[in-house]
Amino acid sequence: MSDKVRIALDVMGGDHGASVVIPGAEISLGRHPDIEFTLFGNRAAVAPVLEAHPKLKANASVVHTEIAIRMDDKPSQALRYGRWKSSMWLAIDAVKKSAADAAVSAGNTGALMAMARFNLKMLPGIERPAIAALWPTLKGESIVLDVGASIGADADHLVSLAAMGSAMARVLFDIERPTVGLLNIGVEEVKGLEEVRQAGQILREGDFPYFDYVGFVEGDDIGKGTVDVVVTEGFAGNIALKTAEGTARQLGQYLKSAMSRTWQARLGYVLARQAFRTLREKMDPRKSNGGVFLGLNGIVIKSHGGTDAEGFAAAIDMAYDMVRYELLAKITQSHARDRNTTMTARAAGGGRP
Amino acid sequence: MSDKVRIALDVMGGDHGASVVIPGAEISLGRHPDIEFTLFGNRAAVAPVLEAHPKLKANASVVHTEIAIRMDDKPSQALRYGRWKSSMWLAIDAVKKSAADAAVSAGNTGALMAMARFNLKMLPGIERPAIAALWPTLKGESIVLDVGASIGADADHLVSLAAMGSAMARVLFDIERPTVGLLNIGVEEVKGLEEVRQAGQILREGDFPYFDYVGFVEGDDIGKGTVDVVVTEGFAGNIALKTAEGTARQLGQYLKSAMSRTWQARLGYVLARQAFRTLREKMDPRKSNGGVFLGLNGIVIKSHGGTDAEGFAAAIDMAYDMVRYELLAKITQSHARDRNTTMTARAAGGGRP
Repeated sequence: MSDKVRIALDVMGGDHGASVVIPGAEISLGRHPDIEFTLFGNRAAVAPVLEAHPKLKANASVVHTEIAIRMDDKPSQALRYGRWKSSMWLAIDAVKKSAADAAVSAGNTGALMAMARFNLKMLPGIERPAIAALWPTLKGESIVLDVGASIGADADHLVSLAAMGSAMARVLFDIERPTVGLLNIGVEEVKGLEEVRQAGQILREGDFPYFDYVGFVEGDDIGKGTVDVVVTEGFAGNIALKTAEGTARQLGQYLKSAMSRTWQARLGYVLARQAFRTLREKMDPRKSNGGVFLGLNGIVIKSHGGTDAEGFAAAIDMAYDMVRYELLAKITQSHARDRNTTMTARAAGGGRP
Repeated sequence: MSDKVRIALDVMGGDHGASVVIPGAEISLGRHPDIEFTLFGNRAAVAPVLEAHPKLKANASVVHTEIAIRMDDKPSQALRYGRWKSSMWLAIDAVKKSAADAAVSAGNTGALMAMARFNLKMLPGIERPAIAALWPTLKGESIVLDVGASIGADADHLVSLAAMGSAMARVLFDIERPTVGLLNIGVEEVKGLEEVRQAGQILREGDFPYFDYVGFVEGDDIGKGTVDVVVTEGFAGNIALKTAEGTARQLGQYLKSAMSRTWQARLGYVLARQAFRTLREKMDPRKSNGGVFLGLNGIVIKSHGGTDAEGFAAAIDMAYDMVRYELLAKITQSHARDRNTTMTARAAGGGRP
């Protein structure tokens, strides 16, 4: 890593492309002046917006490409026309070639996953990447994974999510033995999907010295912070994440309209405005935008496709932290150590057969 | 229906049994003095709590049984020891025998569904029951189904959920042609589970004159009120519901602590307390506790197992409304009419092949 944190952006990704990515990058640059950006995208789209953001322009180089991945293409289609040359591919490829320390894209999730996997390759022992989200809770933060990289998961994949997620929690939260729960629709052992039940059995009966499996958790346990790591497959995880974001926005609206209905409420609002500001920040789902791809040889951050500049900036902030604090390397080391411990234990006849 | 609304309660159901069910019934009775309760449960558990609630006692009869369905039994186990004689069975059976107009239970969901289905039977053309939840949104309310009756659903079941949900929306919201969306993890047609994609295709290409299928919706669309009816299978639906409830509680906590941090905030809170009261009511997930079993020949309401008296009262309120306004009959008629329309259209060569 150079002194600068070098971040590659897929400027064409997301619902709004350059008009969100570029202002977002400038916001994040304001917070982290040591970022150096490379912007991958169509110069015709990038240049005019960049002109309006001179601070960013001074800290960014532009790499032109005419190919952009469409939001509604299948990963296989995207790979066919977008490999080697699309803005998404080039951003990932910059990480591969060590020209950048991390890549951020708000583009098509499936395509991003396929390209990242194809180009960066997976870490030893991991079959499929996962997207991990940092979820604000009443106790602080938890890690929820997978929130959309892979649809459906067998028991073994869920167990590997537990391992990856707990390695991430150990590094991010500095907890020696993070607690892990499996997202299910009831705490009773008999409920839920077959894969989730099987994973529960493996985690319960197995010998995992590096995390503490506490059992099934339900949707409302996520916000309570019942466990450090919530494990689920990508369909349910993504629905949980977006539902929580939608609920936060909805309650923000309720609050706003309640506080403007009477003069007493308006006066109360003025008096308590600092408290409301803090609250608004806490309730703002954009603040926790940005999912980390886990399991890859390189840092790739997925931003929501529909986010605005503030949300995209949060995804860049996350990439920055991953690089500056060498989080991916630490997570990888931690995961490798755990894996060796387990394998040694198994070879010695311990652990699950 | 008699002049009274006769509600059968499974007093032994839920995490807290009589200590929640009985105070909950008294709260609901306060709002609806024309309810007449039959309480099914173990007299040893019921009587002492009932003594402390004289108003309810005056409007309730107790039917003793020593059998209670455990929360962690499989439906098949529950049927084996609980059929004919458990408090849950007897409450449902009162509906079957027209001794009650509706049954409410906070007990084991799987067992409740199995017993209701076994005893009350399904409506014509419906294979499996669904639990429908009324979800408060920025635009009013939407119906979300299924929120936990059945895990996994093929495309045909999802289509039948769309039909049942839209019949319920028509009756409850008085909309001639409700909008319907399929819950998915992206609006792009290519994303998500195979079953959801297939259902999307059937709904898009089919001829359903009685609802307006608008396509895929995501988790954050639920709270926005993007559609009147959100269709999903029970695993994802239950996780979405509980995650939203958890988020609402979490934000309520944030609000509370923000409003007590400084004297300005505390003063602001005092001034705006009426607004906060309204807000608290809106944010309170207990207010929308109570899922309606759809597809059955009779009214059965499922309350959350972990709810408190206020939440259980909301589930009884829902049963009351279903009975008082003859909602189930209207939903059933509406659904039957839709079904005939579709079948006639198909027979005439219209609709999907």
